[in-house]
Amino acid sequence: MLLRILDFSGIAVFAASGALVGVSKRLDIFGVCVVGVITGIGGGLIRDVLLGINPPTSLQNWPYFATAFAACLVVLILHPEVRRIRSGVLVLDAVGVGVFATGGAGIALASGAGALAATIIGMITAIGGGVLRDVLVNEMPLLLQRDLYALPALLGAMVVVLADLSQMPEDAGLIAGSVIAAGLRLLALWRGWNLPTAPRLAGR
Amino acid sequence: MLLRILDFSGIAVFAASGALVGVSKRLDIFGVCVVGVITGIGGGLIRDVLLGINPPTSLQNWPYFATAFAACLVVLILHPEVRRIRSGVLVLDAVGVGVFATGGAGIALASGAGALAATIIGMITAIGGGVLRDVLVNEMPLLLQRDLYALPALLGAMVVVLADLSQMPEDAGLIAGSVIAAGLRLLALWRGWNLPTAPRLAGR
Amino acid sequence: MLLRILDFSGIAVFAASGALVGVSKRLDIFGVCVVGVITGIGGGLIRDVLLGINPPTSLQNWPYFATAFAACLVVLILHPEVRRIRSGVLVLDAVGVGVFATGGAGIALASGAGALAATIIGMITAIGGGVLRDVLVNEMPLLLQRDLYALPALLGAMVVVLADLSQMPEDAGLIAGSVIAAGLRLLALWRGWNLPTAPRLAGR
Repeated sequence: MLLRILDFSGIAVFAASGALVGVSKRLDIFGVCVVGVITGIGGGLIRDVLLGINPPTSLQNWPYFATAFAACLVVLILHPEVRRIRSGVLVLDAVGVGVFATGGAGIALASGAGALAATIIGMITAIGGGVLRDVLVNEMPLLLQRDLYALPALLGAMVVVLADLSQMPEDAGLIAGSVIAAGLRLLALWRGWNLPTAPRLAGR
Repeated sequence: MLLRILDFSGIAVFAASGALVGVSKRLDIFGVCVVGVITGIGGGLIRDVLLGINPPTSLQNWPYFATAFAACLVVLILHPEVRRIRSGVLVLDAVGVGVFATGGAGIALASGAGALAATIIGMITAIGGGVLRDVLVNEMPLLLQRDLYALPALLGAMVVVLADLSQMPEDAGLIAGSVIAAGLRLLALWRGWNLPTAPRLAGR
Repeated sequence: MLLRILDFSGIAVFAASGALVGVSKRLDIFGVCVVGVITGIGGGLIRDVLLGINPPTSLQNWPYFATAFAACLVVLILHPEVRRIRSGVLVLDAVGVGVFATGGAGIALASGAGALAATIIGMITAIGGGVLRDVLVNEMPLLLQRDLYALPALLGAMVVVLADLSQMPEDAGLIAGSVIAAGLRLLALWRGWNLPTAPRLAGR
C-alpha cells in the first residue's frame, strides 16, 4: 500500500518534471501534456515493451494515466509555484527513482526475467521516462552527463534482485532497494556528487 | 474498402512528408528512403509493438512497405513538383491523420485493449511516424509546438472507442471518427488555429 | 562457432564505438557505459522487441551484456590508444555490420517472419545500435547522411532470406551474406563511396 502510494507519487513527480520542461520550451498546452505524460509513464512503457506486457499496464489502467495527466494540468496552471517548491520536487523525484527502479525489477522478476535482465529493466523503468523527455525536446539526456542519477536506480534494482536470489521476502527487498536508491540520490544532490568523465591520459 | 484505400493514401502521404524532410536535410538517397519509410509506417510499428503484434503488420505485408517506398522514390525524383502541390499534400495528410487514428484505435480494441489504451494507441498511430521522423533528423517534434495536429487524432480515436462502447456498428465509428479528425485538422490549417502555450502568470 | 565469435566481436566493436562517442561528448563514466552498451546491444534489442522475444536475448544472457560492458571499460581506460588503431576498429565494425545483419535476418526467419520482415529486421539489427547512439547524444544519425552503411546491411540480410527461400543450408546464407555485407562496407570505406543526394532538378 505504501509502495503503491509512492508509485503514484513517482508518476506525478516525473510527469510534472516533463511538463515543466515543456513549459520552458514554449510548447503548446497539448505538447506540454504529451511530454509530461510520456515522462511520467514512459519508463513503465519501455519496461512493458521489453517484458512483452501488452497493452502496457499504464495504458490499460486509467489511474496511472490520470495521475500523470493531472500533474501536467497542475503544472500548466501553477508552474511558477511549482518551480518555487523545487527542493520538494527534487525529494519526490528521488523517491520516484527508487520506487520505479525497485518496482520495475520486481515486475521483471515476476515476468520470468533473469537476474541481469531484471536489474537492467528496473534501472530502465526509473530512467526511461526522463530519457524519452530529453529525446523529445531534442536535448542530450541530462543523466548521461552529470548528476548521479542512473547509478542509484541501478543499485535499487540490484537490491531487489539480490533479495530475490537470497529468498528474502519480496517486500523487504522492495523497501530496502527504494530506500537505498532514494537515499543515495538525495545524498548526491545534497553533496553535489558527480561521476568523473573519462581520464584524459594526457602526456601518454 | 474505402478505408483501405485511405489507409494506403495515408501511408504514402506520410512517407512523402518524411522523404521531403530528408531531401531538405540533404540526406543521401538511402537516408531519404529510410526516413520516408519510417515516417509512413512508424506509427503502425509503435502501435504493433505496444499491442504485441509480432512481427509488425507493415513488415509482414509487403503492400504497406511498398507503398511507403514508392512514395519516397516519387519524392526523390519529383520533389520540386511535390512541393508545388503542397496544399494537396496537406489535405491528404489530414486524411491520413484521421484514418490512422481511427484505424489504430480499431485495431487496438480488436486486440483486447481497453477504452483508454485504444484511444491513446489510436492517437500514437497517427502521430508516431511524424515524431520518429523529427527525432531521426534531430528536430524537436513540430506537433508539440504548434499546429493543431495531435488533438484531431485524439478526437478521432475517441469517437471509435465511444462508438464501440455504445455498440454502434464498427464502420460507423471508423468513418465518423476519420471525418471528424480530418475535418478538424483541415479547419485548423485553414483558420490557422493553434493551441495556447502555458499562461505566464506574470504579476503573481 | 565462427559466427558466434564474430557476433561477440560485433557487440564489442559497436559498444566501443558508442563509448568513444560518449567520451568525446564529455559524458560521465556511467553515461559512457550506458551509450556504449546501448550501441552494442541496441540493434538486437529492437530486433527482439519487433519479433516479440521477451525479455530480449541480450538481457537474458549475460555474455552479451558483459561483452558490451567490458568494451566500454577498455575504452574508458585506453581511449587514446583505441583511437590510434582506428583502421582496425573500422574493419571490425564492417564485420559487425555483416554478422549482425545476417544473424538478425536468420533469427527473424526462425521466429516466423516473412521474407520482407526478415530482410528489414536484419538491417535494423545491424544499424539500430548506431541510430540509438546518435539519437541519445543528440546528433542526426550519421548513416542517414553519408558513408555507405545501411545498404551493405540490407544486402547481407537479403542474401540470408534468398538462401532460405531457395532452401540452401542456413550456414551458407549466413556466411555468404556476412562476407558480402562486410566486403561491400570495407570497399565503400576504402574507395570513399557515397550515395548521392536527391537531384536538384534545377532549371526545370
